[in-house]
Amino acid sequence: MRHWSKGIRLGRTTLAPGPATIPHRYFSATAPQNNLQAPKLDPTMATSTTKTGQPLDRPVLDSMLRRRMFYTPAFEVYGGVSGLYDYGPPGCSLQANIIETWRKHFVLEEDMLEVDCTMLTPHEVLKTSGHVEKFADWMCKDPKTGEIFRADHLVEEVLESRLKGDKEARGQKVEIDEEKEAKRKKKAKDIKALKLDDSVVKEYEEILAKIDNYDGGELGLLITKYNITNPTTGGNLEPPVAFNLMFQTSIGPSSNLAGYLRPETAQGQFLTFQKLLDFNQQSMPFASACIGKSFRNEISPRAGLLRVREFLMAEIEHYVDPEGGKKHPRFDEVADVKLVLLDRKVQLSGSTNTTEMTIGEAVKSGTVDSETLGYFIARIHLFLLRLGTDPKKMRFRQHMANEMAHYAADCWDAELLTSYGWIECVGCADRSAYDLTVHTRKTGAPLFVRETRNEPLKIEEWQVDIDKKKFGPRFKKEGKTVEAAIEALDQEIREKLSLDLEKNGKIELEVPGTETGKVAIDKDLIKIEKRTRTEHTREYTPNVIEPAFGIGRILYSLMEHVYWSREGAEERGVLSFPPPIAPTKVLLVPLSGGHPDLKPLVKRLSQKLRRLGISNRVDDSGASIGKRYSRNDELGTPLGITVDFQSVHDNSYTLRDRDSTKQVRSDEDTICRAIQSLIEGQKTWADVQKELPEFTQQELD
Amino acid sequence: MRHWSKGIRLGRTTLAPGPATIPHRYFSATAPQNNLQAPKLDPTMATSTTKTGQPLDRPVLDSMLRRRMFYTPAFEVYGGVSGLYDYGPPGCSLQANIIETWRKHFVLEEDMLEVDCTMLTPHEVLKTSGHVEKFADWMCKDPKTGEIFRADHLVEEVLESRLKGDKEARGQKVEIDEEKEAKRKKKAKDIKALKLDDSVVKEYEEILAKIDNYDGGELGLLITKYNITNPTTGGNLEPPVAFNLMFQTSIGPSSNLAGYLRPETAQGQFLTFQKLLDFNQQSMPFASACIGKSFRNEISPRAGLLRVREFLMAEIEHYVDPEGGKKHPRFDEVADVKLVLLDRKVQLSGSTNTTEMTIGEAVKSGTVDSETLGYFIARIHLFLLRLGTDPKKMRFRQHMANEMAHYAADCWDAELLTSYGWIECVGCADRSAYDLTVHTRKTGAPLFVRETRNEPLKIEEWQVDIDKKKFGPRFKKEGKTVEAAIEALDQEIREKLSLDLEKNGKIELEVPGTETGKVAIDKDLIKIEKRTRTEHTREYTPNVIEPAFGIGRILYSLMEHVYWSREGAEERGVLSFPPPIAPTKVLLVPLSGGHPDLKPLVKRLSQKLRRLGISNRVDDSGASIGKRYSRNDELGTPLGITVDFQSVHDNSYTLRDRDSTKQVRSDEDTICRAIQSLIEGQKTWADVQKELPEFTQQELD
Repeated sequence: MRHWSKGIRLGRTTLAPGPATIPHRYFSATAPQNNLQAPKLDPTMATSTTKTGQPLDRPVLDSMLRRRMFYTPAFEVYGGVSGLYDYGPPGCSLQANIIETWRKHFVLEEDMLEVDCTMLTPHEVLKTSGHVEKFADWMCKDPKTGEIFRADHLVEEVLESRLKGDKEARGQKVEIDEEKEAKRKKKAKDIKALKLDDSVVKEYEEILAKIDNYDGGELGLLITKYNITNPTTGGNLEPPVAFNLMFQTSIGPSSNLAGYLRPETAQGQFLTFQKLLDFNQQSMPFASACIGKSFRNEISPRAGLLRVREFLMAEIEHYVDPEGGKKHPRFDEVADVKLVLLDRKVQLSGSTNTTEMTIGEAVKSGTVDSETLGYFIARIHLFLLRLGTDPKKMRFRQHMANEMAHYAADCWDAELLTSYGWIECVGCADRSAYDLTVHTRKTGAPLFVRETRNEPLKIEEWQVDIDKKKFGPRFKKEGKTVEAAIEALDQEIREKLSLDLEKNGKIELEVPGTETGKVAIDKDLIKIEKRTRTEHTREYTPNVIEPAFGIGRILYSLMEHVYWSREGAEERGVLSFPPPIAPTKVLLVPLSGGHPDLKPLVKRLSQKLRRLGISNRVDDSGASIGKRYSRNDELGTPLGITVDFQSVHDNSYTLRDRDSTKQVRSDEDTICRAIQSLIEGQKTWADVQKELPEFTQQELD
Repeated sequence: MRHWSKGIRLGRTTLAPGPATIPHRYFSATAPQNNLQAPKLDPTMATSTTKTGQPLDRPVLDSMLRRRMFYTPAFEVYGGVSGLYDYGPPGCSLQANIIETWRKHFVLEEDMLEVDCTMLTPHEVLKTSGHVEKFADWMCKDPKTGEIFRADHLVEEVLESRLKGDKEARGQKVEIDEEKEAKRKKKAKDIKALKLDDSVVKEYEEILAKIDNYDGGELGLLITKYNITNPTTGGNLEPPVAFNLMFQTSIGPSSNLAGYLRPETAQGQFLTFQKLLDFNQQSMPFASACIGKSFRNEISPRAGLLRVREFLMAEIEHYVDPEGGKKHPRFDEVADVKLVLLDRKVQLSGSTNTTEMTIGEAVKSGTVDSETLGYFIARIHLFLLRLGTDPKKMRFRQHMANEMAHYAADCWDAELLTSYGWIECVGCADRSAYDLTVHTRKTGAPLFVRETRNEPLKIEEWQVDIDKKKFGPRFKKEGKTVEAAIEALDQEIREKLSLDLEKNGKIELEVPGTETGKVAIDKDLIKIEKRTRTEHTREYTPNVIEPAFGIGRILYSLMEHVYWSREGAEERGVLSFPPPIAPTKVLLVPLSGGHPDLKPLVKRLSQKLRRLGISNRVDDSGASIGKRYSRNDELGTPLGITVDFQSVHDNSYTLRDRDSTKQVRSDEDTICRAIQSLIEGQKTWADVQKELPEFTQQELD
């Protein structure tokens, strides 16, 4: 049995530069998709549903999304490249609207400092951050065929397949995930109905529950122990080796400067810290933000838009003083926001039962580590709602201790429920002072805050004075080395040495780098005294709270959340995006295709809406009104205007609501004003329906 | 003497997949910066100037742009990587506003189909497009030091340096380009004052005028002939070799799939043609558009933001029927737009004298090739004006025949004058049917239009009938090969064969792939007749008009165009962006820094403006009002609100105009309304000044 279910992680949060800190997780830069099983654990979620509660038929939705060009496999005419997708016009516009909403919700609302950092990143930077060494997955090669398998995925697939064979042999019902099944059929033998020992079933289930936690060596042992081979040929595999997930290239003509495509925008942001602090007139706290593509060379991408090799991220690095409990000045504004939480303790107890509580309670009870972290969790929740995600399919899951990097103080993922299970769409981590510290240590750049203390700080400490006049002649060319060694002594040793000096009239020190490795210093050369020092400035490395958004995952999950199908003569898909998010706001439909009497009206309306900043498209094809509207429901356009022959006489138009298919009728100006207030979110369709006369003519099929 | 001056080209338009079509230009994917000399040719442009006509001091501007974080060298704490820059908050916001304006001006206004294609591109695609073979520059290596030089730049620099030495020796004044000079000092010996023969001076000048046109072999000959060596060491160099400018990487774990970072967005767009045509319900013409980063691995980037390795592009591919003269339905709307043109003929005559004419005249006279090309040239012009570029520093330069790819029908660059000379910021090319054709040929994908003819087309042609029953037994396993060979015969040969058949009762054909390579076919097996065929559909490959925008170049040139310095106690820089383009719209300045009486007013105003969608920042630092406003003039913020103690009493505020420093005073609502109408471009400051009472209190320095 699994202890907890996980979404597809964005991955970086599992990066653990310190060895031995997170057993089994060093190289699991991306998590396996055990979320595919997640719904099984939670019977209420056993089947994913549409917006209206119908069972969600993913192949039907997917074919609609491709037909309407929300997205399309990239380079398809060249056979395609797995993990690379293009967005077509509606997908592109949806993405732009999500980004615009993000900018308003975060950057503008919180006066963040947006930066645009390069994707090309030199080796040295990602070496320091730990990515060169640790950002990898385990892969196995079949030496005969040259095929490559992601080790954890392979073990998972084979054991699952055997468990299914066992169920079949026992005459139990087997649930089939169609996409997975299709892939299996392509590359593996059919599932054999073969009964396993009860004890073996138990072993397999335990391994699957922990599949995230094995390192390469352990995966290798499992492969040997359970005789896991190339599923197609039965050939033996080489032991797992680490495969770094960054795309490598070289910058400049001499091939000397190795570089990578960034796996996250964060490192670029950290390196601008000092300049941004200056830009912000040394005022803390502040946040930087960056929107841009990042890249991961997945071993075998799957799950459509959810695991891709090139993806749009929006990341915030909020810098906060680690002293004073990481309070947030605007926490009050969100304290009452109610969230669905799945905390660490509950997961450890083997349950996925979520708790609903306000973020105020969560911070007060210590469930969430700090006000600042809590503030952003609540703001993420509000952002996702603003996009139109279903609150019943949203939860915040806390990372287990062994999921987080060793330096992280706390980490919560916003997960959205889809037909692939719970998907991590936003990570919100407290990265402590780790990143700024390692870059400072490597480069010497002052990536910290220096501020004047309100009250000078008095520090009692052991200070060392050296008589430089005598010191030079005594130690000659070793003088500097000895001096540096003395400078580096800590308080405890200084205290002990002051006693030696008093007692013996000299001190003895081990100083590597000198001829004998040891020196003795007489008391006429050195003085060690306890004194009081007054510090007027304070230096500290800020901690970083990092909300990181996978825009493509949010976009896909949102499409599942707003999708439903309208019943009628034939079922028709609808995407009920909220008007501000919808790719196009208004469809203009001349009743009779390209009739010359209607054309000028359509053109004028279109221009007028455009001037109001309202995107619209004209469908003057020969299809019936009903067909044209239904095509448009699939595109998620919230409003439609019908231009008919009555319009020519009295300049009145019909306005149609996508979700209810209800229509109202009024004059041009009134209709345009109604549209504007709907798009800007000031009014709902119910308001408009109350104000304007209904139009009841049936849609023509 | 130079025949014409060129900007820094975006480069791709010089790509020439067909050999021997464009002599000397095969590998010059990017042009050398001979624009650095361009202003010399045109005495009226001898010195670049600020918005107000002052001489432009580039180092002063540059230091201001970096201090205010419009941009900053990327990875500076790691020593930086040449050709990579990050945008800070004002640069990032400026870029976002340019993009938003671009989307409104092109995508929305023209109902273009925006797509978001991946940057990672498989080898095969760029092989077909010609980039793998031809997208390269020439470089020379010093075998001793390992240093690498871009060959054309090296020849240029060395000859220029010798010409300067000659001038010095002759006692003439030497103009010095500071940036170039600084680079030279870093790597080369000082200029030697050495007089050259008059004939040598003439030779050098002629070479410099043609420096764009040499291929690798010719550059190698120049290097040998003029004894050009490593400027630092004097060491000999290896002959020039081609260096491909694409960043290479490999996709997936097996390293089998070579890929590149795209050098342009165009190829991704071409590959979606068929799907977009479907999306557009088979209706022509239409355009796709794509905004995104592209990459070029420059050998030695220089000239700041103008030649970088990672850059934002916005490209349009407008597909048009090649028949019917490439008319454009909205050409009338722009026909009267006046443009400054530098056409091919004028450049050939050795002049850079521009002509002002309307685009209507330019198309009518044949100066510009077609209405569609002309329409986009005019729309580009209007777009650049909308951003705030100076029309006196804008021109459209036609490509010379040897600059264009062999398939291009015509090409014009929008060039902006800067302190680096005339810079190509937008290219507008008619790429003919080239790209769609090569991808169709390679993949078999139908990247063309199939439309029903209004009138069926009757075609008289020679048709061949084969008696299949007899054909099989006669040719056995060679039957298919022979049949295919017959199918492939063109009309002329068919006609000739029909005569043979009549005369000799048989025909003889060479058929490679058969045993003897030849076959004879008797007349009882084959019939060749002239018949009439009726075609109801028409198939054609659309031509592509491609406006391609280098957003970073536009952004930098714009900053030079709107920059000036205000004279006073000390000179202060101002960036006079138009309000819709300015990074931040309003600065809020409490008269007395963080005074508690003023704080709530500032907060309320800030929230109110934000709700109106107007970006604003608060400066409540301790600096004087004057200092704070002047800091803000450098950021290009068009408006400022002063909150003072009078505001606490009567809720009135002072509104300040950046450009005139004039102030008006009124109540909160009136001030906010005035700001909104200024930002949306409905009113000018002059309007506001007429309506509201002036406020004459001096700014405090």
